[in-house]
Amino acid sequence: MDDPAPERSAAERARLETLTANVIRGLAIDAVEKANSGHPGLPMGMADAATVLWGRFLKHNPKDPHWFDRDRFVLSAGHGSMLIYALLHLSGYDVSLEDLQQFRQLHSATPGHPEVHHTPGVETTTGPLGQGLSTAVGMALAERQMAKVYNTPEHVVVDHYTYVIASDGDLQEGVSNEASSFAGHQGLGKLVVLYDDNYIQIDGSTDLAFTEDRAGRYEALGWHVIRDVDAHDNEAVADALSTARNVLDRPSLIVCRSTIGYGSPNLAGTHDIHSDAIGAAEIEATKKNLDLPQEDFYAPDEAKTLFHEQAFRGSQEHCEWEGHMTAYAEADAEKAAELTRRIEGRLPEGWADALPTFEADAKGMASRAASGKVLDALAPVLPELIGGSADLTPSNKTKAAGMENMQFDTPAARYVHYGVREHGMAAIMNGMALHGGVRPYGGTFLIFSDYMKAAVRLGALMDAPVVHVFTHDSVGLGEDGPTHQPIEQLAGLRAIPNLYVIRPADANETAAAWKLALESTAPTALALSRQNLPTLAATAEAAADGVAKGAYVLADSDGEPEVIVVATGAEVGAALEAKDTLGAGCRVVSMPCDRRFFEQDEAYRESVLPKSVRARVAIEAASPLGWGRVVGLDGAVVGIDRFGTSAPGDEALEDLGITAQAVVEAARRVMG
Amino acid sequence: MDDPAPERSAAERARLETLTANVIRGLAIDAVEKANSGHPGLPMGMADAATVLWGRFLKHNPKDPHWFDRDRFVLSAGHGSMLIYALLHLSGYDVSLEDLQQFRQLHSATPGHPEVHHTPGVETTTGPLGQGLSTAVGMALAERQMAKVYNTPEHVVVDHYTYVIASDGDLQEGVSNEASSFAGHQGLGKLVVLYDDNYIQIDGSTDLAFTEDRAGRYEALGWHVIRDVDAHDNEAVADALSTARNVLDRPSLIVCRSTIGYGSPNLAGTHDIHSDAIGAAEIEATKKNLDLPQEDFYAPDEAKTLFHEQAFRGSQEHCEWEGHMTAYAEADAEKAAELTRRIEGRLPEGWADALPTFEADAKGMASRAASGKVLDALAPVLPELIGGSADLTPSNKTKAAGMENMQFDTPAARYVHYGVREHGMAAIMNGMALHGGVRPYGGTFLIFSDYMKAAVRLGALMDAPVVHVFTHDSVGLGEDGPTHQPIEQLAGLRAIPNLYVIRPADANETAAAWKLALESTAPTALALSRQNLPTLAATAEAAADGVAKGAYVLADSDGEPEVIVVATGAEVGAALEAKDTLGAGCRVVSMPCDRRFFEQDEAYRESVLPKSVRARVAIEAASPLGWGRVVGLDGAVVGIDRFGTSAPGDEALEDLGITAQAVVEAARRVMG
Repeated sequence: MDDPAPERSAAERARLETLTANVIRGLAIDAVEKANSGHPGLPMGMADAATVLWGRFLKHNPKDPHWFDRDRFVLSAGHGSMLIYALLHLSGYDVSLEDLQQFRQLHSATPGHPEVHHTPGVETTTGPLGQGLSTAVGMALAERQMAKVYNTPEHVVVDHYTYVIASDGDLQEGVSNEASSFAGHQGLGKLVVLYDDNYIQIDGSTDLAFTEDRAGRYEALGWHVIRDVDAHDNEAVADALSTARNVLDRPSLIVCRSTIGYGSPNLAGTHDIHSDAIGAAEIEATKKNLDLPQEDFYAPDEAKTLFHEQAFRGSQEHCEWEGHMTAYAEADAEKAAELTRRIEGRLPEGWADALPTFEADAKGMASRAASGKVLDALAPVLPELIGGSADLTPSNKTKAAGMENMQFDTPAARYVHYGVREHGMAAIMNGMALHGGVRPYGGTFLIFSDYMKAAVRLGALMDAPVVHVFTHDSVGLGEDGPTHQPIEQLAGLRAIPNLYVIRPADANETAAAWKLALESTAPTALALSRQNLPTLAATAEAAADGVAKGAYVLADSDGEPEVIVVATGAEVGAALEAKDTLGAGCRVVSMPCDRRFFEQDEAYRESVLPKSVRARVAIEAASPLGWGRVVGLDGAVVGIDRFGTSAPGDEALEDLGITAQAVVEAARRVMG
Repeated sequence: MDDPAPERSAAERARLETLTANVIRGLAIDAVEKANSGHPGLPMGMADAATVLWGRFLKHNPKDPHWFDRDRFVLSAGHGSMLIYALLHLSGYDVSLEDLQQFRQLHSATPGHPEVHHTPGVETTTGPLGQGLSTAVGMALAERQMAKVYNTPEHVVVDHYTYVIASDGDLQEGVSNEASSFAGHQGLGKLVVLYDDNYIQIDGSTDLAFTEDRAGRYEALGWHVIRDVDAHDNEAVADALSTARNVLDRPSLIVCRSTIGYGSPNLAGTHDIHSDAIGAAEIEATKKNLDLPQEDFYAPDEAKTLFHEQAFRGSQEHCEWEGHMTAYAEADAEKAAELTRRIEGRLPEGWADALPTFEADAKGMASRAASGKVLDALAPVLPELIGGSADLTPSNKTKAAGMENMQFDTPAARYVHYGVREHGMAAIMNGMALHGGVRPYGGTFLIFSDYMKAAVRLGALMDAPVVHVFTHDSVGLGEDGPTHQPIEQLAGLRAIPNLYVIRPADANETAAAWKLALESTAPTALALSRQNLPTLAATAEAAADGVAKGAYVLADSDGEPEVIVVATGAEVGAALEAKDTLGAGCRVVSMPCDRRFFEQDEAYRESVLPKSVRARVAIEAASPLGWGRVVGLDGAVVGIDRFGTSAPGDEALEDLGITAQAVVEAARRVMG
């Protein structure tokens, strides 16, 4: 692979690489000009290095972008999206010249920032800085785990690199430091980052805000760093990539000294070319400077030569890989079947039979404890489960029985200590989920979902099936006080499109929530209690279907309800207690997942919350925001629109008015 | 100051310091035991170093915790709260032994994590890791700015250090890397961090997840690092502090090699003592080991000796400072008055007269542009304004005319380039606001509020009057696509208690929003458009009062409304357009700030949204979550419960159904 085109002279390859890179530059400025929007600077600056990577090293098959053992390429600096679109087009992916001409237009294949599942060959959605690099760490981690589990001396079936192009902004974001520190700790040798060190960002020179020794930082983080590589010297870039690929005990950072907007006679090296169309005159001058014809979207076949050759080599390797998989199946049918199943993202048949059922129990258990028991039961039947926590393992109950610590020397293990790096954890989990073959979940306190918000959202946007285990889900956590007591987190998470927030009322709802989460292709956020919750008699039967529907009648009224009390999680207990006082006219609805409920058809929603019944009370130990659509203008919410308080949990709840008595009073009020 | 107790022998001082530190340890284990909750490990591990800092160096006056020129002390590792409570008690702050005995109890002065404005001597609320260290960066930045502006050769009136105790977790969080990189860039020499390098975190040894070269990282970030200081060798700690205090061109990190739970014979150095009560037997053994009597909450006067002496020195310095301030006023009355005003946090009289009024204009301007004009007008009259952006200055329009870049060699300047470090920016702004004397605001895109959520929340909890300038506030931003288009951010921010989210409809509402924000003691989040918004005729008169009330009737119906359309920001235009079609029965309400509106009395709310009118439509280009309480069960929301799309802004809005036509249709539907 290090010398993939021996039949061609070095000079000829150089000529072709220069042409290719310049064609990429031309496409970038043309597309940005046509859209009058976009970022030409990065594609122009990194065109050479990207051409070397995609022409000499990247293992991929444009005809099958989903081939499992392909190298992953992540353009962390997603604003430079025209770079990857040009690379995809020139490599033969299903990205046409017309698609490039539709850059940033409605419903086009070439949106403003690269989007996974939208454009073939895009591995992850990037744009929010720091995310791509951090997500790539997860991809490399998943690769290493599966390689260790499945490769045999005879059959190497998981063996690919993860390459990243990252920018100054990527390195400034804290999330990338978290993930990079983690990657260094884990020694992820097959992660190779090309850092576009161009001294320019939107506000101007990086001297304005970013004068740290970036290479030194990465060395301190345990990375193999190659300093001062001229990003416009293809042999230097190739040498650096070769070296990096051979350092297998540490991730590599190649510091590419590039000129932003390389090729533009008047704007190269300035921040004016970072994020704006450069105008017709400068396009003309640039094309002249680059020996390109004055032609819009010029992309001659010759500029595809090297990429097509690389793609051909990739397709051959893909064929060889298929052969290995066949031979593997002959050697070890069971393991091969498991690998195939994991690659295809299918859960094993009957897996859900392993889910525990919990008997009615007034003392009950914390839903975080129930979650731990569910994981204990699932870990043996789901080898793809990769657990972890941001240094709250004993509290989150995330380490399932039998899971060992995943470390550099135990890469096949399934439990990840992320350290106090919530944001990095979420991004790494996104990367694992996108890589495929593994199902990541990770724990922290619900309050610290705040730290990971950007990555949780990105996971929802990417349909990355991650399970976030958020424990200590209300002021009921007690003494840690307002810094640790979530108030608005449930509302904030529920507002994220495509994220399913589930707050189970007891152990059985918790098991049902896990079932739903693992069957989903979207991410799930579980909100679990620190404190004990009674295990209800009704849930052993009703929870599986009830949770799947998002809300269900847990304790019904005799006849038409006089009042409906809706509750989630721990507060279902208070709702039931209130019904004891309110009597037979009161219906109690458990609503573990509002998004699921509002996705049900109107008939089901009406069966749970009849439109005619306006006396409604919702109780949740959290911000009331969002409950208006359940209780309407005539109902009431027993919630908390202030910060919490440090005290034992039951005292905190009482002090903040989260009681059965408050429900009773609100119910009487709304019943008139 | 470096030799504050010359009258006492070194041996005697050592004896007293040991006693003091051991009393702190005893108080910590007793308080955690009594609460059966809390973290004894850090107070025990850092008791010696803290005793040296508080006994020999810290400039403060416990009798006046608000003295402006005091040193700031930040316990970034807030879980070790018993350390600071013990220090405060022993130093003579209004924190009694009874308060210590009420550790973590309801409404006590000693909550689970330290809370500013709650316990005297606590400078900032800590607990969420990484925040304290990052907040401290803001304090040091504010000190330097004011020192440069106000100090004269004759009168040094702003001259204090910011000290931090930070933990492994603090250093793992990305936010601290952002803020630390920024602090290194800025060369904040009067920031001194004691890093509690104890090799232990909750999951176990730091070897599980945190093997980077921390000292090396901080050196790469441009810090002065003192490695391998024995945290239990007081002279070594004192030497390090003296050295650090004298390095004035870089912040200092002192790597304190400590033993967590120092003094506990069986648990010291283990993670079992990190976060749990140690039990009666181990308490007994520990006290024996530390030569403490077997007495609960033992705090003899002798253990207060050194701290009281230091407090006395501080009170003398406070007196001297008062003298300097008096002399300063004699030398330069105007500047001294300005300094006093800033210290007291008062805006100058008549400042609001500088606010511009905008005339009706169909073309109008983007509200981000209006915000820029407001800042241009305010910057000259409000010298306390410190602006900035996370590398989106040209987009956020945050750099007011006349503002210069604040850098190491221009510390008096008022514009801060934070780099692509949103989270760090928010925490740094919190620190500036808590320091006092400055009013920070900072910009980024609304979508990237996600990155800063934890710090935004903490600012709201701390009542830190920061103004967040969030531009590009909807899918109307256009081509950047779903990674950059906020959907759920407004709902998420609105749910934060004590945060005022204001989304102005035009330039006049923008000016009114700034007025409100600057008059507030709570933080404000402004949501501002990228795209042009017409300047409305009605707002020049009505906006100031209307925005202050949160919502107001912008265009009324003739008589009782048949339908009420409620809108915010850019969508007010669509609401008014819908009224053109819907006719005289339609009332249009502009609701720039829901929190303000729901704080108004019922009469006002009824005057805007009469309970009897159930035909209500809300329109906002964002998640519908939260609008239920406005439109009820009989109304409708024109919102977006999916991710956005990359296209020119008007096409994106149309594609996602945010149109006047959609309002008209919804109105007709809800009117029956």
